[in-house]
Amino acid sequence: MRTTLGWQADHAGAALRRTSLRRRDLRADDLAVRVDYCGVCHTDLHAVRAHPGEAPLVPGHEFTGVVTDIGQEVTRFAVGDQVAVGNIVDSCGGCAMCEVGQENFCHEFPTLTYGGTDRRDGTTTLGAFSREYVVRDVFAYPLPAGLDPAAAAPLLCAGITVWEPLRALGVGPGTRVAVAGLGGLGHLAVKLAVALGADTTVISRSADKADDVRRLGGHDLIVSTDERQMTAARDRFDVVIDTIAVPHDVSPYLKLVALDGTLSQVGHLGTVTVQATDLLIGRKKLSSAGSGGRPATAALLEFCAQHDVAADIELLPSARVNEALDRLARNDVRYRFVLDMSDLQWEGS
Amino acid sequence: MRTTLGWQADHAGAALRRTSLRRRDLRADDLAVRVDYCGVCHTDLHAVRAHPGEAPLVPGHEFTGVVTDIGQEVTRFAVGDQVAVGNIVDSCGGCAMCEVGQENFCHEFPTLTYGGTDRRDGTTTLGAFSREYVVRDVFAYPLPAGLDPAAAAPLLCAGITVWEPLRALGVGPGTRVAVAGLGGLGHLAVKLAVALGADTTVISRSADKADDVRRLGGHDLIVSTDERQMTAARDRFDVVIDTIAVPHDVSPYLKLVALDGTLSQVGHLGTVTVQATDLLIGRKKLSSAGSGGRPATAALLEFCAQHDVAADIELLPSARVNEALDRLARNDVRYRFVLDMSDLQWEGS
Repeated sequence: MRTTLGWQADHAGAALRRTSLRRRDLRADDLAVRVDYCGVCHTDLHAVRAHPGEAPLVPGHEFTGVVTDIGQEVTRFAVGDQVAVGNIVDSCGGCAMCEVGQENFCHEFPTLTYGGTDRRDGTTTLGAFSREYVVRDVFAYPLPAGLDPAAAAPLLCAGITVWEPLRALGVGPGTRVAVAGLGGLGHLAVKLAVALGADTTVISRSADKADDVRRLGGHDLIVSTDERQMTAARDRFDVVIDTIAVPHDVSPYLKLVALDGTLSQVGHLGTVTVQATDLLIGRKKLSSAGSGGRPATAALLEFCAQHDVAADIELLPSARVNEALDRLARNDVRYRFVLDMSDLQWEGS
Repeated sequence: MRTTLGWQADHAGAALRRTSLRRRDLRADDLAVRVDYCGVCHTDLHAVRAHPGEAPLVPGHEFTGVVTDIGQEVTRFAVGDQVAVGNIVDSCGGCAMCEVGQENFCHEFPTLTYGGTDRRDGTTTLGAFSREYVVRDVFAYPLPAGLDPAAAAPLLCAGITVWEPLRALGVGPGTRVAVAGLGGLGHLAVKLAVALGADTTVISRSADKADDVRRLGGHDLIVSTDERQMTAARDRFDVVIDTIAVPHDVSPYLKLVALDGTLSQVGHLGTVTVQATDLLIGRKKLSSAGSGGRPATAALLEFCAQHDVAADIELLPSARVNEALDRLARNDVRYRFVLDMSDLQWEGS
């Protein structure tokens, strides 16, 4: 076994504590990755707060780093390569979804980067709030030159989660896109929609986001608490990407969807209740998306390198992980915390 | 005012009774239509059973007949023309939805054929379970030659309700379509999907529908109560048209939708509750549809004439309307009752 350092939750609500962790010895198709940067996702917050304390929990599932060792059959990567890894580290590879490159929808459920069950040895996976991660080669992606590795880390979960619906819904030049909620997912949805050529509007509770919308390249801001603005925007958008991270009524946002358009809810996953007439009038569609398959993830990274898209981040040393989680819970971040793992060093080393 | 005969509900649950009705004198853009055949829709059943008894209720909103008189500005129709009318008889004409020919989604709400409010005089509209209907010319459609007027009547509500989503979802040769529920809407969805070239499957509770599925041109039957069949059909269909007329869980049907496919719920309109993960896994879409706009309605009638599609009906004299409603409530019809209005004659005439 290999040994590294990381940040572990012991039970629900406890502060993460620095501890040593074990990683498996490299299998023939494994890479060892020195984790340099890992984004802090709402999923991490939920996982820590709901942690039953039965198995160790180490969050973190959007990271970049450098290959430090490779298994004997690995040919796609070499030691020293910059790589990125997201929230899926394995899948069955044989089902209809895996066959079309949608490993995120694997019929046997994909292996999650933390809290998942390794397909070969049955152990619970530990995430990338740590200095080393061992990952099967096909679930690591080359980090294209020109992408800042810290700002690129959030592309691997927040980015791909909004990229997949944007692409599946055919967003391109002239598409009228609205992004509801301007957080980690939302600000990347805006940047990606703008880079795809879409006419892009932000829907936010607060009018004070106007400068940010402009800076992100967005074309318009609708203040969701302003009844008049919401009414005026009825039926206006071909695609609404709803990134709001808390339970909410989707009805006011469905009203903004154009004829035959789609609202994709990606920020909060739970029970969704709609009135059929809110879908019927305008033949509107309600959808959802989350994470991404291997081809789309690779394509996203290439697209971001070409279009100079990455997350707006606040970079913190990993020792401030608990502060980051607390502030994320208050939405006090524009727009994604990324942890710098270089402070995870053995004492005396 | 003009006077005719019809079938009227006095209060919730009461049998419809034969009575004389008034129709407006013809406006410049009106047609008077002798109603020959009117289909019996689930909406009629709901309307009669929930009727508060405040205003007179005469159901009936999918009918065919013959023009008997025209207003002075009518040019599209002449006395003697065969026409068809559906569940919408007016709309604002100026909103974004009306402008694209989706009068069924009119922002001022379309005027319904019965129980609606006339846009000019504010009266409550009375439906086509009667011998005469007066309708604005633009909401009457020429009945194409070759269509049987009795079997064509249900195209105007049941038919257009399934035609719009089939077209909007791009159903054509090779599309994998499933139709859940084989009633008035469902059997027309099957015939239309087959005529559009789709690979068409019926999902029904009862295995005894196999012969009917073949006769309708369908290619396969899945028995919804057979867990094994439902599991085997996971992710199989690009489009699922859910015509089930009672409240039900859509989750088992969403599981049958393919990657990026859509389930359109058209049979029951109410509150729909779904788990976001049932949409997320496979990026599936939930939609709805109902009724249709003028261009689509005209196109449907032409398509049906060309492809020899009409409803499978049981034709009853209008005097048996209460029997038809009772049997419809028990699903005891294959697949649509149509009332023959020729028995509505003044005594002695």
